[in-house]
Amino acid sequence: MNPNQTRRPIWQDEEGRLQVIDQRKLPHRCCTVDVRTVADMIQAIQTMVVRGAPLIGVCGAYGMVLAAEEACAGKEPKRDLETLAWALREARPTAVNLTWAVDCIMDRLRRTSDPRQWKAAALREARLIEEAEVVRCRDIGCFGLEPIRTLHASHPERPVQVLTHCNAGWLACIEYGTATAPIYAAHEAGIPVHVWVDETRPLNQGARLTAWELAQKGVPHTVIVDNAGGHLMQRGMVDVVIVGADRVSRNGDAANKIGTYLKALAAFDNGIPFYVAIPSSTIDWNLSDGVNGIPIEMRHPDEVRYVEGLDGERRTRILLPPEASPALNPAFDVTPARLITGLITERGICQASESGIRKRFPEWSS
Amino acid sequence: MNPNQTRRPIWQDEEGRLQVIDQRKLPHRCCTVDVRTVADMIQAIQTMVVRGAPLIGVCGAYGMVLAAEEACAGKEPKRDLETLAWALREARPTAVNLTWAVDCIMDRLRRTSDPRQWKAAALREARLIEEAEVVRCRDIGCFGLEPIRTLHASHPERPVQVLTHCNAGWLACIEYGTATAPIYAAHEAGIPVHVWVDETRPLNQGARLTAWELAQKGVPHTVIVDNAGGHLMQRGMVDVVIVGADRVSRNGDAANKIGTYLKALAAFDNGIPFYVAIPSSTIDWNLSDGVNGIPIEMRHPDEVRYVEGLDGERRTRILLPPEASPALNPAFDVTPARLITGLITERGICQASESGIRKRFPEWSS
Repeated sequence: MNPNQTRRPIWQDEEGRLQVIDQRKLPHRCCTVDVRTVADMIQAIQTMVVRGAPLIGVCGAYGMVLAAEEACAGKEPKRDLETLAWALREARPTAVNLTWAVDCIMDRLRRTSDPRQWKAAALREARLIEEAEVVRCRDIGCFGLEPIRTLHASHPERPVQVLTHCNAGWLACIEYGTATAPIYAAHEAGIPVHVWVDETRPLNQGARLTAWELAQKGVPHTVIVDNAGGHLMQRGMVDVVIVGADRVSRNGDAANKIGTYLKALAAFDNGIPFYVAIPSSTIDWNLSDGVNGIPIEMRHPDEVRYVEGLDGERRTRILLPPEASPALNPAFDVTPARLITGLITERGICQASESGIRKRFPEWSS
Repeated sequence: MNPNQTRRPIWQDEEGRLQVIDQRKLPHRCCTVDVRTVADMIQAIQTMVVRGAPLIGVCGAYGMVLAAEEACAGKEPKRDLETLAWALREARPTAVNLTWAVDCIMDRLRRTSDPRQWKAAALREARLIEEAEVVRCRDIGCFGLEPIRTLHASHPERPVQVLTHCNAGWLACIEYGTATAPIYAAHEAGIPVHVWVDETRPLNQGARLTAWELAQKGVPHTVIVDNAGGHLMQRGMVDVVIVGADRVSRNGDAANKIGTYLKALAAFDNGIPFYVAIPSSTIDWNLSDGVNGIPIEMRHPDEVRYVEGLDGERRTRILLPPEASPALNPAFDVTPARLITGLITERGICQASESGIRKRFPEWSS
């Protein structure tokens, strides 16, 4: 394995076996996990070995390759395939990409009558989905570069200060990332950027994954607690906020990692642009109201009560509150469209509204 | 020592020696530290063995008792006393109580010509300051009970849901606490309350101290990450927010633990009352603009990079981000008065504004 070289969080090795980077172990170790069965893939998604909406979508697609193989080997291939697809879709509830990718492959397989052809058909489709995500992220970078360029022009003497929450980098996607794509594009274009990285409790995807990604690319950054962003904005230390999303409803509401809504409120209160960078695969055109309609996953309370990190050379987890104190762990929140300056999509920046999205994606109009 | 019995975080033992609860070790251990010199007290304040604005004030006062003793034993008592008082005042910059308490005792000692009488005079004054804080917190509880009682009357079938940030409990004060005083008063009055406890990164005073205090008093509570409050408010799961403050300017802006501003924004956005519970010793009448005028302490970045907790039976600290990633650690932020429903003071609830404060404290009017 050589994830650094491929710069992708999922790949097939020489024998065609699926491997993924185990993101729970980063940043202190970079190791991989074999994914041999649909059950393996579901577990990898649920335990957050892999995470991030676009990556979960691609994992769902490759999970369907495994499902095609397993179903074909059974007695009732069609029924088994439906069951395995259902289980994959249910692995995590909030990101729409997972459902979208699984359904996409199911559509293809329902049109393939011979189960012996399923695996090859699913693999072709999964690779298309994967490459489409790469292209979308690259294009998000191109369009998202523009507001950074404009900010830089207005104060060329200092770096553009970007704040981001959670990890919407290549680890969450395939390449470039969504929220990080404009940052990487600016860095590569020679525009000085500095990134405030929200640590993103409870699982610290910011401190662990975004900081690691940025360090690898040589992008200047500083880790802050999730509490600090509002203060930095009040003091003029943030020029723009860019985050990803797990699902955006038709009206432009954006579900993203818990705490995103608080940063959007602070950006709005301080007149700072707040962008949500998403491939169109993240938009749920069937949902008209994200704040009330997007299901919010409740994860295990021990993710709040315990924190994982490095004790000397040893990775361990420590208990924070009193042993008997309960915790609640909602994994996402929904930022209302009214707080979002724009959605950075692969077709350009659009207003976070039904009409704004329609202008960029007229093919979705009824 | 028996801190649980006294329910105070600072006391004198039988031989008159000062002892404090080491709040860094809570909740997993409750142990005490001897404070024998002014240098000990400064260190205890700076390393957050003791913390919380009212408690820091009382510690400053007892620090002045030690200062009186040390200065009296030296060659130039008056000069030494001024130097020690200056060092105590500078131990932490944000809370006004520390300066206030030190100045209060200095005023007394400047009027006491014989240095041999300083210690006794300082001790009398420190005890008055301590008892005055207790009375103020008790009265804050009485006045803060009323909005909770009203909320309960509007939905008697379920507990009143209170969200708090950081620890403004008896550990931060002397007894009752400030933000917790209304909660304890409601609990004792038989009004069902449930508290959402923000863990309060980076030092987790919520998860460690507030959860511990509430558990000891049998108050139902649930620990959440600092990111979660906005979502809970959006979903109707919070009825009222009550926090403490380290300094309130004359216009009603409130400096409190970093992240408080974000919760105030979310409460405002969702029409949820947001109260700041403070003794009048926290009000800085000399400062007209808190957002721009209150100095914000920057603490060591390792408080962000490392987290302390319990690994099995052993207290340890673990590293979260990549070893080379820098961090920034602003300890407080300032919530603008426009987001504050009211200040709960020892004289009643007042509007967070100069005129509102003046009505309750007319003696401060010029």
